[in-house]
Amino acid sequence: MTTTDREIREPKQDRSRATRQRLLQAAITCLARDGWDNATVANIAAEAGISRGAAQHHFPTREDLNFAALDYIFERRREAMSSLETDLQGPHRQRRAVSLLIEYYADDFFKAALQVWTAAAADKALRDRLVPLERRLGRGTHEMAVRLLNADDSDPRTRRLIQATLDLARGLGLADVLTDDSRRRQQIAAEWGAVLESSIKTR
Amino acid sequence: MTTTDREIREPKQDRSRATRQRLLQAAITCLARDGWDNATVANIAAEAGISRGAAQHHFPTREDLNFAALDYIFERRREAMSSLETDLQGPHRQRRAVSLLIEYYADDFFKAALQVWTAAAADKALRDRLVPLERRLGRGTHEMAVRLLNADDSDPRTRRLIQATLDLARGLGLADVLTDDSRRRQQIAAEWGAVLESSIKTR
Repeated sequence: MTTTDREIREPKQDRSRATRQRLLQAAITCLARDGWDNATVANIAAEAGISRGAAQHHFPTREDLNFAALDYIFERRREAMSSLETDLQGPHRQRRAVSLLIEYYADDFFKAALQVWTAAAADKALRDRLVPLERRLGRGTHEMAVRLLNADDSDPRTRRLIQATLDLARGLGLADVLTDDSRRRQQIAAEWGAVLESSIKTR
Repeated sequence: MTTTDREIREPKQDRSRATRQRLLQAAITCLARDGWDNATVANIAAEAGISRGAAQHHFPTREDLNFAALDYIFERRREAMSSLETDLQGPHRQRRAVSLLIEYYADDFFKAALQVWTAAAADKALRDRLVPLERRLGRGTHEMAVRLLNADDSDPRTRRLIQATLDLARGLGLADVLTDDSRRRQQIAAEWGAVLESSIKTR
């Protein structure tokens, strides 16, 4: 490969990666705001300011694009959450971790995922494709929660209470879908954080 | 009104009521199984074995029919739950009440409501119509939980932990949408029930 070839190829790869990332981010926006039915490749391409042809080159179908978006944005969010681990050191770590985890479910990513989950509930082909992704995301979220809470996950009771915390967070995410539920959510996060702090084993 | 008039009218009213109830039950089945898009008056009428014209006589639009179904079935379920209140008396009442409340969210009614909530998240007109119904159902569920738990709802901490229990139940309901999550759900209900029992004020 000549220098010129490399110079031409690398910016092209960068542009391609940037296009891909814009599409993945736009997919989350479209899903959360407009729902599964409207989150087509064409609509997401328009949201991202990219031609439909270019979008279809990256993601032939709506399923490809939206599933890749959930996977990619999940990983970016998980990295961002993990970077907060050192900030959590100090008193009342568990309470602060519970608040973080609960707020994690009250944004566009949860609302986007809810649209895909709910569409899959009424569509077997979509469900079969979603279940492995759901498992992977579920495991990743649990591991993240264990680290943020500095919890001893080998203790069965602790493990179940961490699961309950994530189920609670999902339920609170659902309660935020129609109206802004942030005030009530913060109160519940504080109350549950105090209960959890005195109930789980830490490392 | 002559006796004959009344005799003719009453069976007709009974038939009309029975038709209505079949449609409302069929709406929940269709929503939970086929999703909001497919829960049309025509499809629900077919599910109920009633002509489309007769269904439209009762419920002109899909919104009318599905909203009435959520309202009606919610009230029937609430009556059924309330009738269990005396069975709950005795030791570990709160643990048993938590299990009941959590199972309450793991059936077709929750899955039907989830379809409507998720459609409304991406449709402002539907959302504006759903919010008052959501508030009413939310208040009704909270009152039912207070009675089943025999809780002192005037204690702020107790009130928040009851809300958290219902949010947890919704989150567990959501986790049951793609795959059968009943085993994990029962373990979490038992763990949460034990924590709640030692944390809330009772009457």
